[in-house]
Parts: sequence; C-alpha cells; structure tokens
Amino acid sequence: MNFLSPSTNRTVRAVVFDTFGTVVDWRTGVTSGIRDFARGRGLHRLVHEAEAFADSWRAKYEPSIDPIRRGARPFTTLSRLHLESLQVTLREFGLDPEHVGSDLPELNRVWERLPPWPDSREGIEALARHVLVGPLSNGNTALLARMAKYAGIRWDVIVGSDVTRRYKPQPLAYLHAAEVLEIDPGELMLAAAHNDDLAAAREAGLATAFVLRPTEFGPHQSKDLRAEQNWDVDADSILDLARKVTSP
Amino acid sequence: MNFLSPSTNRTVRAVVFDTFGTVVDWRTGVTSGIRDFARGRGLHRLVHEAEAFADSWRAKYEPSIDPIRRGARPFTTLSRLHLESLQVTLREFGLDPEHVGSDLPELNRVWERLPPWPDSREGIEALARHVLVGPLSNGNTALLARMAKYAGIRWDVIVGSDVTRRYKPQPLAYLHAAEVLEIDPGELMLAAAHNDDLAAAREAGLATAFVLRPTEFGPHQSKDLRAEQNWDVDADSILDLARKVTSP
Repeated sequence: MNFLSPSTNRTVRAVVFDTFGTVVDWRTGVTSGIRDFARGRGLHRLVHEAEAFADSWRAKYEPSIDPIRRGARPFTTLSRLHLESLQVTLREFGLDPEHVGSDLPELNRVWERLPPWPDSREGIEALARHVLVGPLSNGNTALLARMAKYAGIRWDVIVGSDVTRRYKPQPLAYLHAAEVLEIDPGELMLAAAHNDDLAAAREAGLATAFVLRPTEFGPHQSKDLRAEQNWDVDADSILDLARKVTSP
Repeated sequence: MNFLSPSTNRTVRAVVFDTFGTVVDWRTGVTSGIRDFARGRGLHRLVHEAEAFADSWRAKYEPSIDPIRRGARPFTTLSRLHLESLQVTLREFGLDPEHVGSDLPELNRVWERLPPWPDSREGIEALARHVLVGPLSNGNTALLARMAKYAGIRWDVIVGSDVTRRYKPQPLAYLHAAEVLEIDPGELMLAAAHNDDLAAAREAGLATAFVLRPTEFGPHQSKDLRAEQNWDVDADSILDLARKVTSP
C-alpha cells in the first residue's frame, strides 16, 4: 500500500501526523475542560479566565521539554510534564495545587479529551485506505491512544515519544518512527501545521505535508499561517491533503 | 472507560490479545500464501506440501526466539526471525533460498496477510466500546500494524515486542505493556488461546481470558482445547469474551 508524493514522485508508505494543533484543537478542548472544572468548583474567576489558563499551560510545553532534549533531565513522559506545568499554572492563577489535590490527575486528563478539527477524522480515514497512518507526536503512547479514542480517530499504529525516547525536533524522533514501521525515512511523510516540525522532518529525510491550522493559537495567531518552504504537499486541511495525494 | 472482571470484580481498562492463533488463523493464511507462491513458480510438489511447509516454518518459532529470551542473542525482530526460519524451511523442502532470491522478503510477508477468525473483528470492536484494545504479541510493531490492516482489525494501540524488547512469556513483556498504557498490571487483561501465555500473564499480575481456538494447529490439535486454570474468563470466541465481560 502506498501513494506517490505529488511533487517528488517518491513512494510514501505511511503518513504520520503532528497531533496537538494538527489533528486536534487543543486550545478549545483545554479551555472547555478548565471551564467545566472551574464551574464544578465554584471558581468564578477561573471560569472567565479559562482560555488564558489554557494558553499559559500550553506555553510551558516547550520549556518543559527542553531540558530533556538537552540531556539535562532524564526522559519524562509528556503526561507527567503536563501535570507539573498544571501545578505551576494553577499557582499563577492564584490557586493552590494542594487544594485541588486528588482531582489534579483527572484535570490533567483534559489533554486526552480534545476535539478533532472538523476534517481530521474523514481525512485520516481517507488516507488510511492507501497507507499506514499514525501520530508522530511528543505525546506518550497512553495519552495518544486515549486522545484518539475520545476523538474517534482510528490510527493504524501509535509511535509515542515514550517509545522513541526522543522529543521532536530531535532527528531520532523522526528516524526511529521510520525504523519502527520498517520503512525508509523517505517513505514516511510527516503532516504538520508547524513549519519548524516539517523542517526537522525534511532534514531527517522524511516527506513533508503542511496542513494549515490558522486558529490553533486562537483568533490572533501570527505564525504558521502559510507553508514557509516548498513542502511536498501544501494543504488547507487533512481532507485536502488526502485528496491531493490520493487522486492527483 | 472500563469493565469489571466477572470473576474477580476487578476493574479492567485494557484488553490485549495474543495475536497468532488467538486473533488470526496463521496456519490457513501461511498455507494459502505458500500455495500461491508455489503455483506462481510452478513448484508442483510444494503446492501439495504447503500445509506441511506452514507447520514446519511455524515450528521454528519458539526455537528461534529462545536464544533471545536467554540473552544468548541480541534482540531481533520477529520479522527477521521469520525470514531466517523461512530459509531453513525452504532447504528442508528441497528448495534453494538463493534461488528464491529477491522474492524472499515478499514471501516472508505472508505473516502480514493472515485471515482473522470469523468472530475476531466483531468481538474486538465490541470490546473497544468499553476499553482500550491492542495486541500483546511477540510480533514487532510493523508486522502487527500491517497484519491488522489486512485483517480489518482496528486496534487502539499496538505494543510490539520491539517496543518492550521482551518476548513472552518473559514477565517484562506483560508488565511493560501495562506501563506503556499507564495502567496497573491488574487493570490489564490478556486474552489468549494458549494456557502457558495466560499462566505467565497471571504470574505478572494481569487479568486473564482464555479464548478457545481448537483448530489453530489443524484438525488434530491436541493442546489448549480447554482452560487449564480458573482464568478470569473462559470464552469460546472473542465475541463470547466481549459478551461475557460487557453484559455480565
């Protein structure tokens, strides 16, 4: 099973997806989860600040991963990093994590309950008729499996960062995924809404597809509003990507 | 998402399946693949000996894994072991592997094209409405992903032996699967047609379900014709297992 990359004519046997932002709308999902939590606790101010809370929580994503990439901290799963960042964010918003107590792990699971973008399910199903599909995410396997289940997305295979023990954009994160799938890096396509992710994937030898997600970071998003290199495919949704590669 | 184990009342959050024999009918699939190969090559004798060839190939499965379990050989994927065993089996049947040449890897891929037992798809879908489902097999991730795709089986997550770097019945093969899924070993149920696999899983703390597959080894099968311990569930198909745990 395969398709030919429209621009390079190379054989692609699997398409892997950046997940947060490309497949699921983390900002809407986390905001909604925080709002529900705040309502249930009678935290009226947080109800109104839920969106800012989501942004602040997510802003700790890269800084929390960086020490692991640099080798200054042993490998730690993203679920665990999310939990640590949640505690810091709660304090920023004037809340005591100790007070949230045993509900903390449950609150952290909002990352498992994120809505897919409207085209994700159908687009991934369409691609799955031709190639293997899966996430290539900094998420860990358990997080990605529960997220997909909630979102109704059916992956053929999940290669979590806990399997590769590498966080994107480290080259081995991409290369190890190809190795697990027993295909050449050039037969693996990364689909992502982030130009820097695609640049690292291309550097590692992967095929690349840009998927436009202009509101991932909200209505005032200023980056990743267009393909910044001549990626193999330039698509405005996953469904558009599926159409472009399977009926060229 | 979970169900309660009918016999122990423990919470089960994921069901993982032994694959060769429990989910797919390897003997029929390999026999048919060998027969097709023999016909295409005009190897008339092999056409008639295809079933014996399949049995002989499979008989090398345990002996090929044993040195890895014992630490006498570095971890090697099952796909690679299958290929080595194929070469030996060809010689046993009077054929020169060199002569098969570049078709060897393709012939080895018969293990990716195995028919599911008639109840597998429906039974797994039914369980997937309640818990995470996946294979817990000595197969490697790529092999398991392609096998599932061919058989039309939708797993939530695949934990290949190349991820755990352990071959069943080593305890870590079971324990690492629970770790990847971020659940306790007792929240993980192994469904298998093999009593020895279930015994090792129970020893590691997993819940257990016997699935009767009385013709896995052909019409004269002499073992695994019944549950040999009081496993948590005793089922005569995966569909029967799904019924027993989801509508007790």
